[in-house]
This record gives sequence, C-alpha cells and structure tokens, in this order.
Amino acid sequence: MASWAERLTGVRGVLLDISGVLCDSSPGGATAIAGSVEAVARLKQSPLKVRFCTNESQKSVRLLVGVLQQLGFDISEGEVTAPAPATCQILKERGLRPHLLIHEGVRSEFDGIDMSNPNCVVIADAGEAFSYQNMNRAFQVLMELENPVLISLGKGRYYKETSGLMLDVGGYMKALEYACGIKAEVVGKPSPEFFKSALQAIGVEAHQAIMIGDDIVGDVDGAQKCGMRALQVRTGKFRPGDEHHPEVKADGYMDNLAEAVDLLLKHMDK
Amino acid sequence: MASWAERLTGVRGVLLDISGVLCDSSPGGATAIAGSVEAVARLKQSPLKVRFCTNESQKSVRLLVGVLQQLGFDISEGEVTAPAPATCQILKERGLRPHLLIHEGVRSEFDGIDMSNPNCVVIADAGEAFSYQNMNRAFQVLMELENPVLISLGKGRYYKETSGLMLDVGGYMKALEYACGIKAEVVGKPSPEFFKSALQAIGVEAHQAIMIGDDIVGDVDGAQKCGMRALQVRTGKFRPGDEHHPEVKADGYMDNLAEAVDLLLKHMDK
Repeated sequence: MASWAERLTGVRGVLLDISGVLCDSSPGGATAIAGSVEAVARLKQSPLKVRFCTNESQKSVRLLVGVLQQLGFDISEGEVTAPAPATCQILKERGLRPHLLIHEGVRSEFDGIDMSNPNCVVIADAGEAFSYQNMNRAFQVLMELENPVLISLGKGRYYKETSGLMLDVGGYMKALEYACGIKAEVVGKPSPEFFKSALQAIGVEAHQAIMIGDDIVGDVDGAQKCGMRALQVRTGKFRPGDEHHPEVKADGYMDNLAEAVDLLLKHMDK
Repeated sequence: MASWAERLTGVRGVLLDISGVLCDSSPGGATAIAGSVEAVARLKQSPLKVRFCTNESQKSVRLLVGVLQQLGFDISEGEVTAPAPATCQILKERGLRPHLLIHEGVRSEFDGIDMSNPNCVVIADAGEAFSYQNMNRAFQVLMELENPVLISLGKGRYYKETSGLMLDVGGYMKALEYACGIKAEVVGKPSPEFFKSALQAIGVEAHQAIMIGDDIVGDVDGAQKCGMRALQVRTGKFRPGDEHHPEVKADGYMDNLAEAVDLLLKHMDK
C-alpha cells in the first residue's frame, strides 16, 4: 500500500463526523471520546479547513452544538452541515408541506415551515417516537398522496449508544418504502449532494478533502464515491468486520480521532 | 381472453383467503363481508375441496376460527393453514429457540416452544407491539447472533381495517433485514412451501386449484407462481389500480366472494 505521505498528499480540508467520532451518546447524555476535544482543537489551529458533517437528526444544530461545547469542543453552529436544515431548504424550494415523523429535539428546525395539508412525509431518527401509531400515520399520509414524496434524514442502519446498538432511521425508511411501493429521497450522508454542500461551505474540492467517520458505509463509502478520501476510526459504531468489508476499503483505519489527526498533521503538505 | 369455462377447467380445489375475503377487521371486531357466509356454505356443499389459507398472525387459529364461527361461517380449526403453526413446526425441526415480536393474541400458538437463550427472531403482525423498544430488542438479538435467523410470518405490505389501511409485518421485516444486513425467511403467503402445505392438506395438485384472495401480490401472484390459478376479489385491501398491476394479472376479478363462488359453481367440471 502507498505510504501515508502519498495517501494524504494534497489534503486541504477535513470533514468530521460527530457521533461516534467526537462523542458517544446515551439516553443520559453524551461523553467525549478520549482525545477528541484536543484533536479538534489541534486541527482547527492547523492550516487545514475543518467542517463537521453529521447525520444527527434527533437534535437541532443549536442543541447539538450546545452539548458539544459543554463537553469542551471548539465548535459553532455555522461550522455544521446537518440534514434538518438541508431538508428545510429543499421543502421551501419545492413547495413541499411535510408531515413530520421526527424526534422532539429537532422539531425547532422546522419552525416556519408550512405543514398544513401535507404533500410529503419527512422522517428522521425519531427514537421512541417510531411507534406503530406514528409509523402507520406516516404510511397513511403517503398512501393518500397521488405522488407520494418521502424524505429521510439519513439512512443509517444503526448507531451506538453506551447501552448498545440502536436502530437508526434507515430501517424505518425501508419499511415505508416497502409498504408504499416508493423510493425515499435521502438528505444526509451518503448522499453526494450533502457531502458537496459541506465541501462548498469550506471552499475545498472533493479531491482535496478527507472524511473521518465511524461508519464504513455512510461515511467512508459515501465520501469515496464523491471523490474524497476517507479514514474510519475504531470508535462509535465501528465493528471489527468493517476492516474486511466486501466492497468498501477505507484509505486508513485509526484507533480514534486523536490518532487520525496526528497522522494528518504529520503528513499534510507543509 | 378465454371463456370462464376454459379458464376454470379442471378445478378441483379452492384456497380461500380469510381477511378481506370472508370478513373485514377493525379494532372493535370483525364483520362478515356481504354474501360471504352463504358463499362458503355453498362451496362446502359442492364437490370442490376447500381450505382456508391465511396470513393472519395477530390471532391464534383457535381465536380466529371462534370469531368466524360467531359471524356464521362454517369453518373449523382443522381446515385452516396459518403461519404460526407452520412456524412452530419449522422451529422444532431446526432446533430454533425464538425471540418473539408478536401480538399477544397469537402467543398461545407458541406454547411449548423453548424460548431460552434465543438463536432466532420471529416476527408477526404485532400491531401496537411494533414499538421502537421492541423493534430495537429484536434488532439487538439478531446482531448478537453469529448466524442471525429472522423468520417473518408473512410479508404483507398492509391490510385494511374499517378505519383505513394498516401497516402489516412486511415493512418491519424489511426494517430488520436492512438494519442487520440479512434476508428473512417468510412463512406464509406468498411462500411456495406455504401454498403447497395448504394444497397437500386437501390432496389437490396446484394445477387443479384456484386461490381466491384480495391481495394482488400475496394471494394472486404467489398462487400463480405455484402453478395455481387465482381470482382477486374487489373487497378488503383491493385497490382499483390492482387490475392494472404492471406485473401481475389475475385469472379474473370479481366483486366479492359470493360472485366468485357463483362463477366457480357454474363453470366447474360436472
């Protein structure tokens, strides 16, 4: 395999996943992953451009950034690309009025969006709100539409809380797709539009950028398919089998963000 | 198109779907579809062999038959092919110990099944029991298994209650398949083994049998793929678009079971 210096040549920007890379979540709160606070600080002091690129859809960006700041991270709302704000932009552009199946923590992102007489359904990682009754209502709204539109904030299979692996929005998206005989539009990683909007925000081209994430599909495969490089960290939802994934090979596997940042700062173009 | 006499030539046995053909269900109870009680009685007095072939997985066969008898139907437990008893047979044959995600009404079918230290997950139309917590538990059990086995009692997209369309087990099966990266085994229509076991019970070959159902995929397509003929009735979950399905064409579309039985009795081989 090529040397690290070769593999990292020309990198000017870094996209950082949040959950499982910066912190681990649990119903009781979030905890910083060891070394990540300092790693983010070092990265931001370097010449590399940094953007946070998350599929977090249980919390508004404001809430999320507040939690991370409390954990000691140097992060502000303007540095985060997240699916809820991106979805609101799409809704406005296309005149879509959503029926929402979402977590209460992200509802404020949709303030000001017209929700009368819904002509689409938006689902996010709703957690406990994925009750049969709520799923059935979303299903019924879609079945009543002549041209059903389903927007899913991410399509993750699962994420990791301290208590164990947790079902993410992806399965529920598949359930509605199957029941209604439709295909959802995904806003969030691994959608190329989503990665591109994150790169645009820091003015970096895909071939000059590297994604650091814990998800072999959503982060690594998604970023690589956009022409970026990608490192997988062995924290968060990482599972040992990921390093032998039949289709996806990261440009490197690191124990954690601290190690990934060490590597980047050591080998980046001076 | 061929005449009815030609289309029905050689029919010796009839498989009848239950929900949406014999009766409609609602949370408050079931109501017989007009003409169906008499239609079943006439069919059973004819030389045709009759078997009930249902994907009902919210109720035990005993409970289901009790409800139908109360509505006036001539039906007994021994005449019903249903997924829960078929699943129990599979579990015993293969030494599988299930974690169950099912409706309370069908739990008694699993009496006597070893459920200690589960090595598979069985899901059925669980209705309100499809909570996030219960889905997540089923997901976690599967993810902890080295060779995860998921058995789904049917894979229906939805069914109809008097209050409207309701999500069936199929979507939840897809959710677990996607989240775990596995493929479920379906017990029930449209699985060929399931249709064959119903035909065996009445000693009729597939080419001599006709299925009557309200589901263009589960009933009509499934039966036809087994070499049977199939009529779709315009009751239950029937939707007008079914008659223009891109891939499936029933051997006939009837307003209801009474009309279908009229036709069968008129054109069957004397």
